[in-house]
Amino acid sequence: MAELLDGKKVAEEITARVREKADRLTAAGILPTLAIIRVGEDPGDMSYERGAKKRAEKAGVSVKEFHFSDDACQEELMDTLRQINRDESIHGLLMLRPLPKHLDEAGLCEMLDPAKDVDGITSGSLAGVFMDTGQGYPPCTAEACMAILDHYGVDLKGMKVVVMGRSLVIGKPVAMMVMKRHATITMLHSRTREEDFRAAARDADIIIAAMGRAKAVGSDQLGEDQILIDVGINMDDEGRLCGDIDPDAAESRAKSRTPVPGGVGSVTTAILMKHVVEAAEKV
Amino acid sequence: MAELLDGKKVAEEITARVREKADRLTAAGILPTLAIIRVGEDPGDMSYERGAKKRAEKAGVSVKEFHFSDDACQEELMDTLRQINRDESIHGLLMLRPLPKHLDEAGLCEMLDPAKDVDGITSGSLAGVFMDTGQGYPPCTAEACMAILDHYGVDLKGMKVVVMGRSLVIGKPVAMMVMKRHATITMLHSRTREEDFRAAARDADIIIAAMGRAKAVGSDQLGEDQILIDVGINMDDEGRLCGDIDPDAAESRAKSRTPVPGGVGSVTTAILMKHVVEAAEKV
Repeated sequence: MAELLDGKKVAEEITARVREKADRLTAAGILPTLAIIRVGEDPGDMSYERGAKKRAEKAGVSVKEFHFSDDACQEELMDTLRQINRDESIHGLLMLRPLPKHLDEAGLCEMLDPAKDVDGITSGSLAGVFMDTGQGYPPCTAEACMAILDHYGVDLKGMKVVVMGRSLVIGKPVAMMVMKRHATITMLHSRTREEDFRAAARDADIIIAAMGRAKAVGSDQLGEDQILIDVGINMDDEGRLCGDIDPDAAESRAKSRTPVPGGVGSVTTAILMKHVVEAAEKV
Repeated sequence: MAELLDGKKVAEEITARVREKADRLTAAGILPTLAIIRVGEDPGDMSYERGAKKRAEKAGVSVKEFHFSDDACQEELMDTLRQINRDESIHGLLMLRPLPKHLDEAGLCEMLDPAKDVDGITSGSLAGVFMDTGQGYPPCTAEACMAILDHYGVDLKGMKVVVMGRSLVIGKPVAMMVMKRHATITMLHSRTREEDFRAAARDADIIIAAMGRAKAVGSDQLGEDQILIDVGINMDDEGRLCGDIDPDAAESRAKSRTPVPGGVGSVTTAILMKHVVEAAEKV
Protein backbone atom coordinates (compact mmCIF):
# COMPACT_ATOMS: atom_id res chain seq x y z
CA MET A 1 0.00 0.00 0.00
CA ALA A 2 1.30 3.40 -0.97
CA GLU A 3 1.80 6.14 1.60
CA LEU A 4 -0.63 8.99 0.98
CA LEU A 5 0.97 12.37 0.28
CA ASP A 6 -1.86 14.38 1.72
CA GLY A 7 -2.24 17.68 -0.13
CA LYS A 8 -4.89 18.92 2.27
CA LYS A 9 -2.53 18.55 5.22
CA VAL A 10 0.26 20.37 3.38
CA ALA A 11 -2.19 23.10 2.37
CA GLU A 12 -3.43 23.55 5.93
CA GLU A 13 0.08 23.93 7.24
CA ILE A 14 1.01 26.50 4.60
CA THR A 15 -2.28 28.33 5.16
CA ALA A 16 -1.67 28.56 8.91
CA ARG A 17 1.71 30.20 8.35
CA VAL A 18 0.26 32.54 5.72
CA ARG A 19 -2.63 33.44 8.03
CA GLU A 20 -0.22 34.64 10.73
CA LYS A 21 1.51 36.95 8.31
CA ALA A 22 -1.78 38.14 6.83
CA ASP A 23 -3.12 38.98 10.28
CA ARG A 24 0.00 40.97 11.12
CA LEU A 25 -0.30 42.88 7.83
CA THR A 26 -4.01 43.53 8.36
CA ALA A 27 -3.31 44.81 11.88
CA ALA A 28 -0.80 47.19 10.31
CA GLY A 29 -3.46 48.49 7.93
CA ILE A 30 -2.51 46.46 4.85
CA LEU A 31 -5.22 43.97 3.84
CA PRO A 32 -3.59 41.39 1.51
CA THR A 33 -5.80 41.33 -1.55
CA LEU A 34 -6.05 39.05 -4.58
CA ALA A 35 -7.80 40.07 -7.78
CA ILE A 36 -9.38 37.27 -9.83
CA ILE A 37 -10.18 37.67 -13.52
CA ARG A 38 -12.57 35.12 -14.99
CA VAL A 39 -13.84 35.23 -18.58
CA GLY A 40 -16.88 33.05 -19.31
CA GLU A 41 -18.29 30.30 -17.11
CA ASP A 42 -16.11 27.26 -17.67
CA PRO A 43 -16.96 24.75 -14.92
CA GLY A 44 -13.26 24.06 -14.25
CA ASP A 45 -12.55 27.79 -13.87
CA MET A 46 -15.54 28.28 -11.60
CA SER A 47 -14.57 25.34 -9.44
CA TYR A 48 -10.99 26.60 -9.13
CA GLU A 49 -12.27 30.09 -8.30
CA ARG A 50 -14.50 28.72 -5.54
CA GLY A 51 -11.52 26.83 -4.13
CA ALA A 52 -9.35 29.94 -4.25
CA LYS A 53 -11.98 32.02 -2.48
CA LYS A 54 -12.37 29.47 0.30
CA ARG A 55 -8.61 29.29 0.70
CA ALA A 56 -8.36 33.09 0.70
CA GLU A 57 -10.87 33.29 3.55
CA LYS A 58 -8.89 30.78 5.60
CA ALA A 59 -5.66 32.62 4.86
CA GLY A 60 -6.98 36.07 5.73
CA VAL A 61 -6.70 37.29 2.14
CA SER A 62 -9.35 39.52 0.60
CA VAL A 63 -10.61 38.83 -2.94
CA LYS A 64 -11.82 41.20 -5.66
CA GLU A 65 -13.55 39.48 -8.56
CA PHE A 66 -13.63 40.69 -12.14
CA HIS A 67 -16.03 38.60 -14.24
CA PHE A 68 -16.53 38.89 -17.98
CA SER A 69 -18.84 37.19 -20.45
CA ASP A 70 -17.07 34.83 -22.83
CA ASP A 71 -17.32 37.33 -25.70
CA ALA A 72 -15.40 40.01 -23.77
CA CYS A 73 -13.00 41.95 -25.99
CA GLN A 74 -9.27 42.50 -25.59
CA GLU A 75 -9.77 46.20 -24.75
CA GLU A 76 -12.05 45.47 -21.79
CA LEU A 77 -9.49 43.11 -20.31
CA MET A 78 -6.63 45.50 -20.98
CA ASP A 79 -8.55 48.22 -19.13
CA THR A 80 -9.06 45.92 -16.17
CA LEU A 81 -5.39 44.96 -16.10
CA ARG A 82 -4.41 48.63 -16.11
CA GLN A 83 -6.83 49.25 -13.27
CA ILE A 84 -5.40 46.31 -11.27
CA ASN A 85 -1.84 47.52 -11.91
CA ARG A 86 -2.73 51.00 -10.63
CA ASP A 87 -4.80 49.88 -7.64
CA GLU A 88 -2.51 49.93 -4.61
CA SER A 89 -5.00 47.91 -2.56
CA ILE A 90 -4.54 44.90 -4.89
CA HIS A 91 -1.36 42.83 -4.35
CA GLY A 92 -1.75 39.99 -6.80
CA LEU A 93 -3.76 38.69 -9.75
CA LEU A 94 -5.12 35.25 -10.58
CA MET A 95 -6.30 35.22 -14.19
CA LEU A 96 -8.14 31.99 -14.94
CA ARG A 97 -6.72 30.45 -18.10
CA PRO A 98 -6.85 29.45 -20.85
CA LEU A 99 -8.78 32.52 -21.96
CA PRO A 100 -11.21 32.21 -24.90
CA LYS A 101 -9.24 31.87 -28.13
CA HIS A 102 -10.23 35.27 -29.58
CA LEU A 103 -8.20 36.98 -26.85
CA ASP A 104 -4.43 37.54 -26.94
CA GLU A 105 -3.63 35.75 -23.70
CA ALA A 106 0.15 36.19 -23.91
CA GLY A 107 -0.24 39.92 -24.47
CA LEU A 108 -2.55 40.25 -21.46
CA CYS A 109 -0.22 38.21 -19.22
CA GLU A 110 2.68 40.44 -20.18
CA MET A 111 0.73 43.62 -19.25
CA LEU A 112 0.57 42.64 -15.59
CA ASP A 113 2.81 44.51 -13.17
CA PRO A 114 5.54 41.93 -12.34
CA ALA A 115 5.21 42.80 -8.64
CA LYS A 116 1.61 41.52 -8.75
CA ASP A 117 2.41 38.38 -10.75
CA VAL A 118 1.66 35.91 -7.94
CA ASP A 119 0.92 33.03 -10.35
CA GLY A 120 4.04 33.20 -12.53
CA ILE A 121 2.40 34.30 -15.78
CA THR A 122 4.77 37.07 -16.88
CA SER A 123 8.03 36.51 -18.74
CA GLY A 124 9.84 38.09 -15.79
CA SER A 125 8.64 35.43 -13.35
CA LEU A 126 9.28 32.61 -15.83
CA ALA A 127 12.77 33.95 -16.54
CA GLY A 128 13.30 33.93 -12.77
CA VAL A 129 12.49 30.21 -12.68
CA PHE A 130 14.63 29.43 -15.74
CA MET A 131 17.61 31.53 -14.64
CA ASP A 132 17.18 30.74 -10.94
CA THR A 133 17.44 34.39 -9.93
CA GLY A 134 14.57 34.33 -7.42
CA GLN A 135 12.90 37.10 -9.44
CA GLY A 136 9.08 37.00 -9.43
CA TYR A 137 6.89 34.07 -8.37
CA PRO A 138 6.96 30.57 -9.88
CA PRO A 139 3.67 29.21 -11.24
CA CYS A 140 1.70 28.07 -8.16
CA THR A 141 1.15 24.49 -9.35
CA ALA A 142 4.89 23.97 -9.86
CA GLU A 143 5.67 25.33 -6.41
CA ALA A 144 2.86 23.17 -4.97
CA CYS A 145 4.65 20.02 -6.18
CA MET A 146 7.82 21.20 -4.46
CA ALA A 147 5.94 22.00 -1.25
CA ILE A 148 4.54 18.46 -1.09
CA LEU A 149 7.97 16.90 -1.66
CA ASP A 150 9.45 19.20 0.99
CA HIS A 151 6.69 18.50 3.49
CA TYR A 152 7.32 14.78 3.24
CA GLY A 153 11.09 15.22 3.51
CA VAL A 154 12.04 14.03 0.02
CA ASP A 155 15.68 14.90 -0.72
CA LEU A 156 15.88 15.38 -4.48
CA LYS A 157 19.66 15.34 -4.80
CA GLY A 158 20.69 12.73 -7.37
CA MET A 159 17.12 11.43 -7.77
CA LYS A 160 15.88 10.50 -11.22
CA VAL A 161 12.79 12.63 -11.76
CA VAL A 162 10.54 12.14 -14.76
CA VAL A 163 8.29 15.07 -15.66
CA MET A 164 5.39 14.16 -17.95
CA GLY A 165 4.20 17.19 -19.91
CA ARG A 166 6.11 20.26 -21.09
CA SER A 167 3.72 23.15 -20.50
CA LEU A 168 4.82 26.53 -19.21
CA VAL A 169 2.29 26.34 -16.40
CA ILE A 170 3.78 23.24 -14.86
CA GLY A 171 6.04 20.87 -16.83
CA LYS A 172 8.89 23.23 -17.73
CA PRO A 173 8.99 25.23 -14.48
CA VAL A 174 8.75 22.21 -12.20
CA ALA A 175 11.56 20.53 -14.15
CA MET A 176 13.78 23.58 -13.57
CA MET A 177 12.86 23.71 -9.87
CA VAL A 178 13.60 20.02 -9.39
CA MET A 179 16.91 20.30 -11.25
CA LYS A 180 17.89 23.24 -9.04
CA ARG A 181 17.69 20.76 -6.17
CA HIS A 182 20.20 18.60 -8.06
CA ALA A 183 17.81 15.97 -9.40
CA THR A 184 18.40 14.42 -12.82
CA ILE A 185 15.42 15.25 -15.00
CA THR A 186 13.85 13.60 -18.01
CA MET A 187 10.94 15.34 -19.72
CA LEU A 188 8.39 13.11 -21.45
CA HIS A 189 5.64 14.49 -23.67
CA SER A 190 3.16 13.72 -26.43
CA ARG A 191 5.92 13.27 -29.02
CA THR A 192 8.05 10.95 -26.89
CA ARG A 193 8.20 7.46 -28.42
CA GLU A 194 5.93 5.08 -26.55
CA GLU A 195 8.69 2.65 -25.65
CA ASP A 196 10.91 5.50 -24.40
CA PHE A 197 8.06 6.88 -22.33
CA ARG A 198 7.49 3.51 -20.69
CA ALA A 199 11.17 2.83 -20.05
CA ALA A 200 11.94 6.25 -18.56
CA ALA A 201 8.80 6.31 -16.41
CA ARG A 202 9.44 2.81 -15.03
CA ASP A 203 13.03 3.69 -14.25
CA ALA A 204 12.31 6.94 -12.36
CA ASP A 205 12.57 7.51 -8.61
CA ILE A 206 9.90 10.20 -8.80
CA ILE A 207 7.20 10.86 -11.41
CA ILE A 208 5.52 14.24 -11.77
CA ALA A 209 2.57 13.68 -14.12
CA ALA A 210 1.15 16.82 -15.73
CA MET A 211 -0.27 15.86 -19.09
CA GLY A 212 -3.96 16.40 -18.40
CA ARG A 213 -4.95 12.93 -19.68
CA ALA A 214 -7.21 10.89 -17.43
CA LYS A 215 -5.46 7.82 -16.01
CA ALA A 216 -2.97 7.82 -18.90
CA VAL A 217 -0.25 6.36 -16.67
CA GLY A 218 -1.00 2.75 -15.68
CA SER A 219 0.88 -0.34 -14.49
CA ASP A 220 2.80 -0.45 -17.76
CA GLN A 221 4.36 2.94 -17.08
CA LEU A 222 5.07 2.47 -13.38
CA GLY A 223 8.06 0.97 -11.61
CA GLU A 224 8.21 -0.27 -8.03
CA ASP A 225 8.48 1.95 -4.95
CA GLN A 226 8.23 5.26 -6.76
CA ILE A 227 7.07 8.62 -5.45
CA LEU A 228 4.14 9.76 -7.62
CA ILE A 229 3.05 13.38 -7.83
CA ASP A 230 -0.13 13.60 -9.91
CA VAL A 231 -0.89 17.11 -11.19
CA GLY A 232 -3.70 16.06 -13.53
CA ILE A 233 -7.29 17.08 -12.80
CA ASN A 234 -9.51 15.26 -15.29
CA MET A 235 -12.91 13.58 -15.51
CA ASP A 236 -12.97 9.80 -15.91
CA ASP A 237 -15.55 7.86 -17.95
CA GLU A 238 -17.98 7.90 -15.03
CA GLY A 239 -17.68 11.67 -14.71
CA ARG A 240 -15.58 11.56 -11.55
CA LEU A 241 -12.49 13.63 -10.87
CA CYS A 242 -9.27 11.75 -11.52
CA GLY A 243 -5.60 12.41 -12.15
CA ASP A 244 -3.17 11.43 -14.92
CA ILE A 245 -2.15 8.29 -13.03
CA ASP A 246 -4.42 5.29 -12.59
CA PRO A 247 -4.99 5.24 -8.82
CA ASP A 248 -5.31 1.45 -8.56
CA ALA A 249 -2.00 0.88 -10.31
CA ALA A 250 -0.40 3.60 -8.18
CA GLU A 251 -1.81 2.20 -4.97
CA SER A 252 -0.38 -1.25 -5.57
CA ARG A 253 3.05 -0.26 -6.87
CA ALA A 254 4.11 3.13 -5.53
CA LYS A 255 6.02 3.94 -2.37
CA SER A 256 3.93 7.09 -1.94
CA ARG A 257 1.47 9.11 -4.02
CA THR A 258 -0.72 12.19 -4.09
CA PRO A 259 -4.47 11.54 -4.44
CA VAL A 260 -6.78 13.38 -6.87
CA PRO A 261 -8.67 15.25 -5.52
CA GLY A 262 -6.86 16.22 -2.32
CA GLY A 263 -3.33 16.29 -3.72
CA VAL A 264 -1.46 18.95 -5.69
CA GLY A 265 -4.63 20.92 -6.47
CA SER A 266 -5.28 21.52 -2.78
CA VAL A 267 -1.81 22.94 -2.26
CA THR A 268 -1.91 25.22 -5.31
CA THR A 269 -4.35 27.72 -3.82
CA ALA A 270 -2.40 27.77 -0.54
CA ILE A 271 0.75 28.70 -2.49
CA LEU A 272 -1.25 31.39 -4.30
CA MET A 273 -2.19 32.97 -0.95
CA LYS A 274 1.42 32.66 0.24
CA HIS A 275 2.49 34.66 -2.82
CA VAL A 276 -0.24 37.30 -2.31
CA VAL A 277 0.89 37.85 1.28
CA GLU A 278 4.55 38.00 0.20
CA ALA A 279 3.62 40.59 -2.41
CA ALA A 280 1.70 42.59 0.22
CA GLU A 281 4.73 42.43 2.54
CA LYS A 282 6.90 43.98 -0.16
CA VAL A 283 4.65 47.00 -0.61
CA MET B 1 34.50 5.53 -38.44
CA ALA B 2 32.27 8.36 -37.38
CA GLU B 3 30.99 10.88 -39.91
CA LEU B 4 32.50 14.31 -39.23
CA LEU B 5 30.00 17.07 -38.46
CA ASP B 6 32.13 19.84 -39.85
CA GLY B 7 31.54 23.06 -37.94
CA LYS B 8 33.72 25.04 -40.31
CA LYS B 9 31.55 24.08 -43.26
CA VAL B 10 28.37 24.99 -41.39
CA ALA B 11 29.93 28.28 -40.32
CA GLU B 12 30.98 29.14 -43.89
CA GLU B 13 27.49 28.52 -45.17
CA ILE B 14 25.88 30.67 -42.49
CA THR B 15 28.49 33.37 -43.00
CA ALA B 16 27.82 33.50 -46.75
CA ARG B 17 24.11 34.08 -46.15
CA VAL B 18 24.84 36.68 -43.47
CA ARG B 19 27.32 38.43 -45.76
CA GLU B 20 24.67 38.93 -48.44
CA LYS B 21 22.35 40.60 -45.96
CA ALA B 22 25.18 42.65 -44.46
CA ASP B 23 26.20 43.91 -47.90
CA ARG B 24 22.62 44.94 -48.69
CA LEU B 25 22.38 46.80 -45.37
CA THR B 26 25.74 48.49 -45.89
CA ALA B 27 24.69 49.60 -49.37
CA ALA B 28 21.60 51.11 -47.76
CA GLY B 29 23.79 53.06 -45.35
CA ILE B 30 23.49 50.79 -42.32
CA LEU B 31 26.81 49.16 -41.35
CA PRO B 32 26.01 46.18 -39.08
CA THR B 33 28.16 46.69 -36.01
CA LEU B 34 29.08 44.52 -33.03
CA ALA B 35 30.49 45.93 -29.80
CA ILE B 36 32.81 43.67 -27.81
CA ILE B 37 33.48 44.20 -24.11
CA ARG B 38 36.50 42.42 -22.69
CA VAL B 39 37.70 42.82 -19.10
CA GLY B 40 41.23 41.59 -18.42
CA GLU B 41 43.36 39.41 -20.67
CA ASP B 42 42.17 35.87 -20.18
CA PRO B 43 43.69 33.76 -22.99
CA GLY B 44 40.36 32.06 -23.67
CA ASP B 45 38.59 35.42 -23.97
CA MET B 46 41.30 36.81 -26.24
CA SER B 47 41.21 33.75 -28.46
CA TYR B 48 37.42 33.94 -28.73
CA GLU B 49 37.62 37.65 -29.49
CA ARG B 50 40.14 37.04 -32.28
CA GLY B 51 37.82 34.41 -33.73
CA ALA B 52 34.85 36.75 -33.54
CA LYS B 53 36.77 39.55 -35.26
CA LYS B 54 37.86 37.27 -38.09
CA ARG B 55 34.31 36.02 -38.51
CA ALA B 56 32.97 39.59 -38.43
CA GLU B 57 35.30 40.55 -41.26
CA LYS B 58 34.10 37.63 -43.38
CA ALA B 59 30.49 38.44 -42.61
CA GLY B 60 30.76 42.15 -43.41
CA VAL B 61 30.16 43.16 -39.79
CA SER B 62 32.07 46.01 -38.20
CA VAL B 63 33.49 45.65 -34.66
CA LYS B 64 33.99 48.21 -31.90
CA GLU B 65 36.15 47.00 -29.03
CA PHE B 66 35.90 48.10 -25.42
CA HIS B 67 38.79 46.76 -23.36
CA PHE B 68 39.22 47.12 -19.62
CA SER B 69 41.92 46.09 -17.18
CA ASP B 70 40.93 43.27 -14.85
CA ASP B 71 40.47 45.67 -11.95
CA ALA B 72 37.85 47.73 -13.81
CA CYS B 73 35.00 48.84 -11.57
CA GLN B 74 31.26 48.32 -11.94
CA GLU B 75 30.66 52.01 -12.70
CA GLU B 76 33.05 52.04 -15.68
CA LEU B 77 31.27 49.06 -17.21
CA MET B 78 27.85 50.52 -16.50
CA ASP B 79 28.89 53.71 -18.28
CA THR B 80 30.04 51.71 -21.28
CA LEU B 81 26.81 49.73 -21.38
CA ARG B 82 24.80 52.98 -21.30
CA GLN B 83 26.93 54.31 -24.12
CA ILE B 84 26.40 51.13 -26.18
CA ASN B 85 22.64 51.25 -25.52
CA ARG B 86 22.48 54.87 -26.73
CA ASP B 87 24.78 54.46 -29.75
CA GLU B 88 22.55 53.90 -32.78
CA SER B 89 25.50 52.74 -34.86
CA ILE B 90 25.93 49.66 -32.59
CA HIS B 91 23.50 46.78 -33.19
CA GLY B 92 24.69 44.13 -30.79
CA LEU B 93 27.01 43.39 -27.88
CA LEU B 94 29.31 40.49 -27.11
CA MET B 95 30.47 40.72 -23.50
CA LEU B 96 33.16 38.14 -22.81
CA ARG B 97 32.27 36.19 -19.69
CA PRO B 98 32.68 35.21 -16.96
CA LEU B 99 33.66 38.69 -15.78
CA PRO B 100 36.08 39.03 -12.85
CA LYS B 101 34.32 38.08 -9.61
CA HIS B 102 34.30 41.58 -8.11
CA LEU B 103 31.84 42.70 -10.80
CA ASP B 104 28.06 42.15 -10.69
CA GLU B 105 27.81 40.26 -13.97
CA ALA B 106 24.06 39.59 -13.77
CA GLY B 107 23.35 43.27 -13.14
CA LEU B 108 25.46 44.31 -16.13
CA CYS B 109 23.80 41.74 -18.42
CA GLU B 110 20.39 43.02 -17.41
CA MET B 111 21.33 46.63 -18.27
CA LEU B 112 21.76 45.82 -21.95
CA ASP B 113 19.05 47.02 -24.34
CA PRO B 114 17.20 43.77 -25.22
CA ALA B 115 17.24 44.79 -28.90
CA LYS B 116 21.06 44.58 -28.81
CA ASP B 117 21.20 41.31 -26.88
CA VAL B 118 22.62 39.21 -29.74
CA ASP B 119 24.17 36.63 -27.39
CA GLY B 120 21.14 35.84 -25.21
CA ILE B 121 22.41 37.29 -21.94
CA THR B 122 19.33 39.27 -20.77
CA SER B 123 16.39 37.73 -18.93
CA GLY B 124 14.19 38.79 -21.85
CA SER B 125 16.10 36.64 -24.34
CA LEU B 126 16.31 33.72 -21.94
CA ALA B 127 12.57 33.96 -21.19
CA GLY B 128 12.06 33.88 -24.95
CA VAL B 129 13.90 30.55 -25.13
CA PHE B 130 12.10 29.13 -22.09
CA MET B 131 8.63 30.30 -23.16
CA ASP B 132 9.26 29.75 -26.87
CA THR B 133 7.96 33.19 -27.81
CA GLY B 134 10.70 34.00 -30.31
CA GLN B 135 11.53 37.09 -28.23
CA GLY B 136 15.20 38.11 -28.23
CA TYR B 137 18.13 35.94 -29.36
CA PRO B 138 19.09 32.55 -27.91
CA PRO B 139 22.64 32.16 -26.58
CA CYS B 140 24.83 31.70 -29.69
CA THR B 141 26.39 28.41 -28.57
CA ALA B 142 22.96 26.81 -28.07
CA GLU B 143 21.81 27.97 -31.50
CA ALA B 144 25.11 26.75 -32.99
CA CYS B 145 24.30 23.19 -31.82
CA MET B 146 20.92 23.45 -33.53
CA ALA B 147 22.49 24.83 -36.72
CA ILE B 148 24.83 21.84 -36.96
CA LEU B 149 22.00 19.34 -36.42
CA ASP B 150 19.91 21.18 -39.03
CA HIS B 151 22.74 21.35 -41.55
CA TYR B 152 23.21 17.60 -41.36
CA GLY B 153 19.48 16.95 -41.63
CA VAL B 154 18.93 15.47 -38.18
CA ASP B 155 15.20 15.23 -37.43
CA LEU B 156 14.89 15.56 -33.67
CA LYS B 157 11.27 14.43 -33.33
CA GLY B 158 11.05 11.57 -30.83
CA MET B 159 14.84 11.35 -30.46
CA LYS B 160 16.33 10.74 -27.03
CA VAL B 161 18.67 13.65 -26.43
CA VAL B 162 20.97 13.77 -23.43
CA VAL B 163 22.29 17.20 -22.46
CA MET B 164 25.33 17.12 -20.19
CA GLY B 165 25.61 20.31 -18.15
CA ARG B 166 22.91 22.67 -16.91
CA SER B 167 24.36 26.15 -17.45
CA LEU B 168 22.32 29.10 -18.67
CA VAL B 169 24.80 29.71 -21.47
CA ILE B 170 24.26 26.33 -23.08
CA GLY B 171 22.77 23.37 -21.16
CA LYS B 172 19.38 24.79 -20.22
CA PRO B 173 18.70 26.75 -23.42
CA VAL B 174 19.79 23.98 -25.77
CA ALA B 175 17.59 21.52 -23.86
CA MET B 176 14.59 23.81 -24.39
CA MET B 177 15.42 24.27 -28.08
CA VAL B 178 15.77 20.55 -28.65
CA MET B 179 12.52 19.82 -26.79
CA LYS B 180 10.74 22.41 -28.93
CA ARG B 181 11.62 20.15 -31.86
CA HIS B 182 9.84 17.32 -30.00
CA ALA B 183 12.89 15.46 -28.73
CA THR B 184 12.80 13.74 -25.35
CA ILE B 185 15.41 15.34 -23.13
CA THR B 186 17.41 14.14 -20.16
CA MET B 187 19.69 16.60 -18.40
CA LEU B 188 22.78 15.17 -16.71
CA HIS B 189 25.04 17.22 -14.46
CA SER B 190 27.63 17.13 -11.72
CA ARG B 191 25.13 15.86 -9.14
CA THR B 192 23.74 13.08 -11.33
CA ARG B 193 24.60 9.66 -9.87
CA GLU B 194 27.48 8.07 -11.78
CA GLU B 195 25.51 4.97 -12.76
CA ASP B 196 22.56 7.09 -13.94
CA PHE B 197 24.90 9.27 -15.96
CA ARG B 198 26.40 6.26 -17.70
CA ALA B 199 23.06 4.55 -18.34
CA ALA B 200 21.34 7.64 -19.76
CA ALA B 201 24.31 8.65 -21.90
CA ARG B 202 24.70 5.16 -23.38
CA ASP B 203 21.01 4.98 -24.13
CA ALA B 204 20.76 8.34 -25.95
CA ASP B 205 20.33 8.89 -29.69
CA ILE B 206 22.12 12.23 -29.42
CA ILE B 207 24.52 13.58 -26.80
CA ILE B 208 25.17 17.28 -26.36
CA ALA B 209 28.16 17.55 -24.04
CA ALA B 210 28.62 20.92 -22.33
CA MET B 211 30.28 20.34 -19.00
CA GLY B 212 33.65 21.94 -19.66
CA ARG B 213 35.58 18.88 -18.46
CA ALA B 214 38.34 17.63 -20.75
CA LYS B 215 37.54 14.20 -22.24
CA ALA B 216 35.16 13.42 -19.35
CA VAL B 217 32.98 11.30 -21.64
CA GLY B 218 34.72 8.09 -22.70
CA SER B 219 33.80 4.62 -23.96
CA ASP B 220 32.02 3.88 -20.70
CA GLN B 221 29.55 6.68 -21.31
CA LEU B 222 28.99 6.12 -25.01
CA GLY B 223 26.54 3.87 -26.83
CA GLU B 224 26.74 2.71 -30.43
CA ASP B 225 25.83 4.83 -33.46
CA GLN B 226 25.13 8.02 -31.59
CA ILE B 227 25.27 11.60 -32.82
CA LEU B 228 27.76 13.48 -30.62
CA ILE B 229 27.76 17.26 -30.31
CA ASP B 230 30.74 18.34 -28.24
CA VAL B 231 30.47 21.89 -26.88
CA GLY B 232 33.48 21.65 -24.56
CA ILE B 233 36.61 23.67 -25.24
CA ASN B 234 39.26 22.51 -22.80
CA MET B 235 42.99 21.88 -22.60
CA ASP B 236 44.15 18.26 -22.29
CA ASP B 237 47.19 17.12 -20.29
CA GLU B 238 49.47 17.90 -23.22
CA GLY B 239 48.10 21.43 -23.44
CA ARG B 240 46.13 20.80 -26.61
CA LEU B 241 42.55 21.91 -27.24
CA CYS B 242 40.02 19.17 -26.64
CA GLY B 243 36.32 18.73 -26.01
CA ASP B 244 34.31 17.04 -23.26
CA ILE B 245 34.23 13.78 -25.23
CA ASP B 246 37.26 11.57 -25.71
CA PRO B 247 37.81 11.77 -29.50
CA ASP B 248 39.20 8.25 -29.84
CA ALA B 249 36.21 6.71 -28.10
CA ALA B 250 33.88 8.89 -30.16
CA GLU B 251 35.61 8.02 -33.42
CA SER B 252 35.24 4.29 -32.90
CA ARG B 253 31.68 4.23 -31.58
CA ALA B 254 29.67 7.21 -32.85
CA LYS B 255 27.59 7.50 -35.99
CA SER B 256 28.70 11.12 -36.34
CA ARG B 257 30.47 13.71 -34.23
CA THR B 258 31.69 17.29 -34.08
CA PRO B 259 35.46 17.74 -33.75
CA VAL B 260 37.16 20.09 -31.26
CA PRO B 261 38.40 22.46 -32.56
CA GLY B 262 36.39 22.93 -35.76
CA GLY B 263 32.99 21.96 -34.38
CA VAL B 264 30.46 23.93 -32.35
CA GLY B 265 32.92 26.70 -31.52
CA SER B 266 33.37 27.54 -35.20
CA VAL B 267 29.64 27.92 -35.69
CA THR B 268 29.10 30.07 -32.59
CA THR B 269 30.72 33.19 -34.03
CA ALA B 270 28.81 32.75 -37.31
CA ILE B 271 25.53 32.68 -35.34
CA LEU B 272 26.68 35.79 -33.48
CA MET B 273 27.11 37.65 -36.79
CA LYS B 274 23.75 36.35 -37.98
CA HIS B 275 22.16 37.90 -34.89
CA VAL B 276 24.00 41.21 -35.35
CA VAL B 277 22.75 41.49 -38.91
CA GLU B 278 19.20 40.56 -37.85
CA ALA B 279 19.37 43.25 -35.17
CA ALA B 280 20.60 45.77 -37.76
CA GLU B 281 17.75 44.80 -40.09
CA LYS B 282 15.22 45.60 -37.37
CA VAL B 283 16.51 49.14 -36.85
